[in-house]
Amino acid sequence: MGEGMDRVRVSILGATGLVGQWMIKLLANHPFIEIVGLSASPGKVGRKYGDVVHWFIPGDIPEYVKDMALVSTDPADHKAADVVLSALPNDVAWPTESKLANAGLNVVSNASPERMNPRIPLINPEVNWEHLNILRDLKGNWMVKNPNCTAAIISMPLKPIQDLIGTLHIVTLQSVSGAGYLGLSYLAIDGNVIPFIKGEEEKIDIEINKMLGKQLVDHYDPWGKPIYVTATRVPVKYGHTAVIHAILNRNADANQVIERLRRFKSLPQEKELPTAPREPIKVLDRVDAPQPARDLDPMAVSVGRVTIRDNVLRLVVIGDNLVRGAAGITILTIETMKTLGIL
Amino acid sequence: MGEGMDRVRVSILGATGLVGQWMIKLLANHPFIEIVGLSASPGKVGRKYGDVVHWFIPGDIPEYVKDMALVSTDPADHKAADVVLSALPNDVAWPTESKLANAGLNVVSNASPERMNPRIPLINPEVNWEHLNILRDLKGNWMVKNPNCTAAIISMPLKPIQDLIGTLHIVTLQSVSGAGYLGLSYLAIDGNVIPFIKGEEEKIDIEINKMLGKQLVDHYDPWGKPIYVTATRVPVKYGHTAVIHAILNRNADANQVIERLRRFKSLPQEKELPTAPREPIKVLDRVDAPQPARDLDPMAVSVGRVTIRDNVLRLVVIGDNLVRGAAGITILTIETMKTLGIL
Amino acid sequence: MGEGMDRVRVSILGATGLVGQWMIKLLANHPFIEIVGLSASPGKVGRKYGDVVHWFIPGDIPEYVKDMALVSTDPADHKAADVVLSALPNDVAWPTESKLANAGLNVVSNASPERMNPRIPLINPEVNWEHLNILRDLKGNWMVKNPNCTAAIISMPLKPIQDLIGTLHIVTLQSVSGAGYLGLSYLAIDGNVIPFIKGEEEKIDIEINKMLGKQLVDHYDPWGKPIYVTATRVPVKYGHTAVIHAILNRNADANQVIERLRRFKSLPQEKELPTAPREPIKVLDRVDAPQPARDLDPMAVSVGRVTIRDNVLRLVVIGDNLVRGAAGITILTIETMKTLGIL
Amino acid sequence: MGEGMDRVRVSILGATGLVGQWMIKLLANHPFIEIVGLSASPGKVGRKYGDVVHWFIPGDIPEYVKDMALVSTDPADHKAADVVLSALPNDVAWPTESKLANAGLNVVSNASPERMNPRIPLINPEVNWEHLNILRDLKGNWMVKNPNCTAAIISMPLKPIQDLIGTLHIVTLQSVSGAGYLGLSYLAIDGNVIPFIKGEEEKIDIEINKMLGKQLVDHYDPWGKPIYVTATRVPVKYGHTAVIHAILNRNADANQVIERLRRFKSLPQEKELPTAPREPIKVLDRVDAPQPARDLDPMAVSVGRVTIRDNVLRLVVIGDNLVRGAAGITILTIETMKTLGIL
Repeated sequence: MGEGMDRVRVSILGATGLVGQWMIKLLANHPFIEIVGLSASPGKVGRKYGDVVHWFIPGDIPEYVKDMALVSTDPADHKAADVVLSALPNDVAWPTESKLANAGLNVVSNASPERMNPRIPLINPEVNWEHLNILRDLKGNWMVKNPNCTAAIISMPLKPIQDLIGTLHIVTLQSVSGAGYLGLSYLAIDGNVIPFIKGEEEKIDIEINKMLGKQLVDHYDPWGKPIYVTATRVPVKYGHTAVIHAILNRNADANQVIERLRRFKSLPQEKELPTAPREPIKVLDRVDAPQPARDLDPMAVSVGRVTIRDNVLRLVVIGDNLVRGAAGITILTIETMKTLGIL
Repeated sequence: MGEGMDRVRVSILGATGLVGQWMIKLLANHPFIEIVGLSASPGKVGRKYGDVVHWFIPGDIPEYVKDMALVSTDPADHKAADVVLSALPNDVAWPTESKLANAGLNVVSNASPERMNPRIPLINPEVNWEHLNILRDLKGNWMVKNPNCTAAIISMPLKPIQDLIGTLHIVTLQSVSGAGYLGLSYLAIDGNVIPFIKGEEEKIDIEINKMLGKQLVDHYDPWGKPIYVTATRVPVKYGHTAVIHAILNRNADANQVIERLRRFKSLPQEKELPTAPREPIKVLDRVDAPQPARDLDPMAVSVGRVTIRDNVLRLVVIGDNLVRGAAGITILTIETMKTLGIL
Repeated sequence: MGEGMDRVRVSILGATGLVGQWMIKLLANHPFIEIVGLSASPGKVGRKYGDVVHWFIPGDIPEYVKDMALVSTDPADHKAADVVLSALPNDVAWPTESKLANAGLNVVSNASPERMNPRIPLINPEVNWEHLNILRDLKGNWMVKNPNCTAAIISMPLKPIQDLIGTLHIVTLQSVSGAGYLGLSYLAIDGNVIPFIKGEEEKIDIEINKMLGKQLVDHYDPWGKPIYVTATRVPVKYGHTAVIHAILNRNADANQVIERLRRFKSLPQEKELPTAPREPIKVLDRVDAPQPARDLDPMAVSVGRVTIRDNVLRLVVIGDNLVRGAAGITILTIETMKTLGIL
Repeated sequence: MGEGMDRVRVSILGATGLVGQWMIKLLANHPFIEIVGLSASPGKVGRKYGDVVHWFIPGDIPEYVKDMALVSTDPADHKAADVVLSALPNDVAWPTESKLANAGLNVVSNASPERMNPRIPLINPEVNWEHLNILRDLKGNWMVKNPNCTAAIISMPLKPIQDLIGTLHIVTLQSVSGAGYLGLSYLAIDGNVIPFIKGEEEKIDIEINKMLGKQLVDHYDPWGKPIYVTATRVPVKYGHTAVIHAILNRNADANQVIERLRRFKSLPQEKELPTAPREPIKVLDRVDAPQPARDLDPMAVSVGRVTIRDNVLRLVVIGDNLVRGAAGITILTIETMKTLGIL
């Protein structure tokens, strides 16, 4: 794939933030997606990206974006883009995204507003790429949302065992980068656990229920399972951890569950999309796995501690909140839409 | 209390470790418990405590122990003690403790071996001081065990709502000091979550079931509730956190639960024992409480995020694993036994 | 002292910040200083302190300030105060402080502007209380500045060996709380060293030179020694460390230096001022001392690694940047002025 | 280079430790160095490397070593190696290394014993590859030592400005990995600074003096400059920082110094050795550089804060203590010896 294929031109909103930086890094050397615009807050418009950005993710800033002049978020500045990628903060995203959508532009967005809009697909490609099919017959432009970072990670190992599950009890241990580069001060979180993240528990519940449900043209049928979530913040830089206790609705064996997780492949794997992990779910054998500081993979999730006692399945999952949970999922969504012929 | 009371003479096994140091700190200026012996590993016997100890807990080493010569763990070296307090590591404790017991000495121990022995009470004073009553008619010496640090913390808020609970799902976020001063290397745990602590999940399950059950002379009736536990280690120095999802067996209201937790008092409070916290369970109103770095109390547990959705009660509890979870509970047990006339 | 003494009424500017909170904590139960006003930013004026403050320092918020209504920074709101204590941030302090001074109020300030004003004494009480004498004959009100937190800590062990020193090479390892509660994000400083703190190196150099020099009525004679400083930020919450290499101008012996440091007492010790440490300079014998996480004292500085090789004296000093370096020094200055009869 | 070249066969002592793991990682896909043996402590001999190693460095364990059976440290087990690389801990290294040397084997070692042996070259390739020339005419086998990790990093920026320097004052802020994977417990170093590392200050002084001096056949002439060092440990995982105040013996300009540092190239660069960094000394312009968490390069050192005031040159340097400071320097030494025809 990639050879001879039409190129997809994208512009990025919020290009100087953590997620925007990851999008740029992941798109350096991409076989068919090309960045044609980078936008940032008004005060930075017109300046060179390399002069403005405080580049804090691993590796050097890619050469090819250093001299790009930053543009505004006005639709006029994004006409050259086939799709606009939004890495805007949740609290400012919607006015900009809706203005672009109203002007006829396509948008794939990481921001939370309108994720539960019944006409907007909420996409984690391996989990529910089929939800994109409602866009096939659509006249005009479209918008696609990507899920909350934690919902993106947790929905992955649930997908292949969805039929076994009755109720979910989930506790998350989320890394600090999930709050943005300046999101938490050192004095607040170092050596601490903060057992509350505003809005997070509700998002995880309803977004998983949407993604594991059915998307129809003008509404969706949620999965319909109760998901009880407690979300905590822990002093880890990168990588969210979730402990899942699933109350099963029928007998199962831990080895069967492990087998299903290991064998799971979806469209992105079958089509060998450039950003797709070869194995989307890695089941680790080490008794003390998975650990964010040792086992983090950019696009795959890693699972461990899979046990069943009575009718309770326990598993621990980790994933990269900035890549699988944000920048990578957006790009994989574009690749999926391209391979489906929607884009 | 304390005035005119007979003094209790204690000796401490494992006096140079983290828990041993806390025992010494808590007994400085105690109204009626007096340290008459400190023992440490064979190579240190005969040397002065102050010359040997690597004192790493807050505050200075109390003057009165600096010049005490360390003794061995042989019964002969503990004859002056009314009770021997054991702060020995789990893996070496039992041979020493049983030797002392066989020689006719009384022992209160923090170490895990024989905690589930049906004839040995497992005591968290506020939770199940009544279990001590089986010792009243006992001829000869006795042994009492204190629970695992996490079980000590979690059992506290469960006690006043025990009748409401059907099943428990618990995820712990335990601090590094729970593994001892040298228990985890910086490279292993900094910026990381380790989702496995050997033996911990089983202990939390069965010890809570023993403490919340009935202790009879030669056996105990466990509480009998399923407790599903996942134990993790997080980069926090002091203070264990537990997220509890309790499936209730009847309707309840979060405010009623909070009320029961706040009103909870037990024998240690009624008798105003010196080490007893005035309020054993603090319910905090702050939306992001309780946090180990901000809200830790030495002997009380702190609870927050109390909500009920459907029949699922959620609460988050933190406690000081070295004081409430270890050194303090031992001392409070001695005080309780004294006030009951058993000691 | 304290019995029968006139009380000193103070108000605090910046009462909700880290330093303001420490001032309140240190003044709870003070024998003769009394808080009569707390001010905060305009949006908070009129509200109760306890409802507004995000109390993040150790221990609970003192009861007696919880219900105090916050006032503005206008002189009219501080008429009841004998002295206004300023814990304002450096970048906003001066307009407020000068307005209060022009209105005839006395001010003791922690903020950096005008520290080098030749008519304003810069006071670290044990080091240069004599500089306060220029205020004795002053008609009208006065202003006193306290030094930069690191200069406060470093100047202490230099004082008793001032005559030996020719040149200083200093490297600081400063804690994150020195930048304020929100000063540094977790992602920026965790697991990192930042070898630059804006303005810090110049302040350390010139402020030490002012404090160790002579204050005259309308100018000062600086000490006049070259001080080469490199200031770094390290992932430590509380406690600044400084490594000092002093090139001596005459022969000396490490034991003589230690002796001078240990014996050092000044007016605050002689007068037994309430906030004065008994030993202002603790020299620790442990080979790996002093360490901020183990050896920090609120008002004393701790010194270790004292060696002399050739003509180079090396010592490492730590101090509490929020107490000795800020809130405590302000209060000790008030106490000193009271005992001198200036206040 | 590499094409058609004779291959160099190496075996590794201490292959399961942090430095041993890095050697293996760096040698995966090496153009002409090949691992023919891995040895570990006696209990592990005969077992497969992949089954024994606790792989804790970034990335996965290279496939090609997973099935290698571990050998002993006996000379008989290393006969197939052209050179034995020693990553043994300092305290156990010498008996093994000398036994291998006496048996006629060539050794390049990271361990500290015998680094100051006047007949053994102490090599940081860019700094003093010429010292290897004494081995040219040697009959029989040889031993080469690599310097202490901090001396390796610091000696690099000193080399091009060696002629300007009169005296050095150095303060190091060393990362925890320098003490090995289990070297420091979390409770000891988290949120702390430990201002003492046993033996480190002496090593930095004398090793820099040896490397910047002249190596002759049976002795060496040290550089002869006084180097005053204070070594501290900080809570950073990877990357040592050093603050250098150099007292210059003649006038210089900061820009000239920067120019010299930037232009510095040595034999490894000229010969384009595979492990050589293209620029061995990166001078960073950012005012707050270099930072270990943002700017670390495996084999180059990064320099910032270059200023001159009076005759004092200040610079801050960071380097990767496990690669440039240990595993990488050993491999670069082998490459250098090969290109010189000594090996």
